Amino acid sequence: MGKLFVGVDLGGTKIYTALADETGTILKEIIVGTEANKGPEQIVEKIKSSIRNVLEDINIDDIKAIGIGSPGPLDIKNGLIAEPANLPFKNYNIVKEIKDEFNVPVYLDNDANVATLAEFKFGAGVNTENMIYVTASTGVGGGAILNGKIYRGSTANALEVGHTTISTTGRRCGCGNRGCVEAMTSGTAIKKAAIEALESRVETSLREYENISAKEVFIEAEKGDKVANEILSEALSYLGAAISNYANIFDPDMIVIGGGITGGGKIVFDKINDEMKKRCLGTILNNCKIEKAKLEGQAGVLGAIALAMMETK
Amino acid sequence: MGKLFVGVDLGGTKIYTALADETGTILKEIIVGTEANKGPEQIVEKIKSSIRNVLEDINIDDIKAIGIGSPGPLDIKNGLIAEPANLPFKNYNIVKEIKDEFNVPVYLDNDANVATLAEFKFGAGVNTENMIYVTASTGVGGGAILNGKIYRGSTANALEVGHTTISTTGRRCGCGNRGCVEAMTSGTAIKKAAIEALESRVETSLREYENISAKEVFIEAEKGDKVANEILSEALSYLGAAISNYANIFDPDMIVIGGGITGGGKIVFDKINDEMKKRCLGTILNNCKIEKAKLEGQAGVLGAIALAMMETK
Repeated sequence: MGKLFVGVDLGGTKIYTALADETGTILKEIIVGTEANKGPEQIVEKIKSSIRNVLEDINIDDIKAIGIGSPGPLDIKNGLIAEPANLPFKNYNIVKEIKDEFNVPVYLDNDANVATLAEFKFGAGVNTENMIYVTASTGVGGGAILNGKIYRGSTANALEVGHTTISTTGRRCGCGNRGCVEAMTSGTAIKKAAIEALESRVETSLREYENISAKEVFIEAEKGDKVANEILSEALSYLGAAISNYANIFDPDMIVIGGGITGGGKIVFDKINDEMKKRCLGTILNNCKIEKAKLEGQAGVLGAIALAMMETK
Repeated sequence: MGKLFVGVDLGGTKIYTALADETGTILKEIIVGTEANKGPEQIVEKIKSSIRNVLEDINIDDIKAIGIGSPGPLDIKNGLIAEPANLPFKNYNIVKEIKDEFNVPVYLDNDANVATLAEFKFGAGVNTENMIYVTASTGVGGGAILNGKIYRGSTANALEVGHTTISTTGRRCGCGNRGCVEAMTSGTAIKKAAIEALESRVETSLREYENISAKEVFIEAEKGDKVANEILSEALSYLGAAISNYANIFDPDMIVIGGGITGGGKIVFDKINDEMKKRCLGTILNNCKIEKAKLEGQAGVLGAIALAMMETK
């Protein structure tokens, strides 16, 4: 059996495929557009040809396993991509398809778990035993490594941290519930709060922008705009409270924060640490590190490689 | 090696010791007062004599292991009772003491984990793979069985569910934080809310009692008192939201609810299920059962037995 691994990061806009050795060093990689609108067959064909491409100078016997990260929902046990929002699959057996083609073990997991595995194996979480990964961008998601293994839960939907309630009477979330972490603290939440401010009479330098998103709120907050700071402060307090909850629940060695929110810089981690100090039990607080995700753009593909490694260990 | 187990439930007021077979059937048991004020030596002596008592007609070779459940904080790895609030121990090596006396393997865990193990092995959670236990009485605590094993976290303090924040600006908790589940939904929280009502001008049948606790609030709510119902409804909504969070985080097969709160009957479980329906993701909701704890008074001793069993499996 071989010692090399292939990882496939299947996304709504691009497919990132890489060949790596046992240390996670990428030996060859290729990125192609997903062109989701052209249908599932061509996506599968692109995955196959991407794998063939990275294997060009390699004997297939050198490959130990292939890992695939995909947007959920998935049926991991049966290797199915169930029905993701931005991919044209419906209960498609991607694992069988790729396995039949290359005749090596193939493993599938959702993008949050795969990113979690990446940070644990190659990123911020190396040498931890219990590690929580939280990613906050448009939405909020997460994953957990517990006792050195990915924890998936009974229906493979664990760590839906974005849909834990942090304010029972808070903003309505896309999921229908009120006060979800995602509704209170994501990029979308920050944008909504900024738009509310602009619709009011309040004085703010946010008015200088034609289009507003979380990014502009961070920029104006740094420049000293009071309203922008107020919006961020509130959103980040909720994020900090949520992360404190995950700490008190999992008692982990580390919580890794990824996603667009980390682009906000020091204020983000300051706020999280403030809330942790207020809300975490002493022993847990003293042990649990808060770290910024290291891999980001490569998290998907390295996580798919980590998945292949850990499933064949 | 033997096939029988001894469990010791060490509590602030009593020490409950039992001998059980592999099925968890109790063959002999003894309960003695802890008399914590008389010092640690006499407690240890009572534990030893209780174990000798249940072993009276048994050959020590028939005993596979002894399990001990104790109030925390503990140092499980080193077998120490660190410094519990209501026991006079300070970093006391109870495991070594009992092991030296009886010369069989001895295991220690905190009372929340032990109760979790009891429900998993002998109670409501039999045949689950992922099970969360939440107990709400004066305080709120919990434990988790993940992939068939107790999950302890990095400093053995996992599942401090009582100190997860459910309302960032809510009532101050004993731990110093605001809006902890324990502050919003425990027996103590219900009592505080009732006292606030009595100190106001509101009309309520709660005024008929000289001393008020959560129990009287449940009684008057059932009789139709509006204020008592309002207090319960609010506290139980927070409990339901918190339990929904644990469901969305752990994606478990079952959440077992124990402690005094379950004495409140149907309204408790109705409220929890209402919140679950509002706040849980569909797949998780459809899979996760909410069950009342079955063992309660025997949870500690049966859990100590379950601990001994699972550690020697």
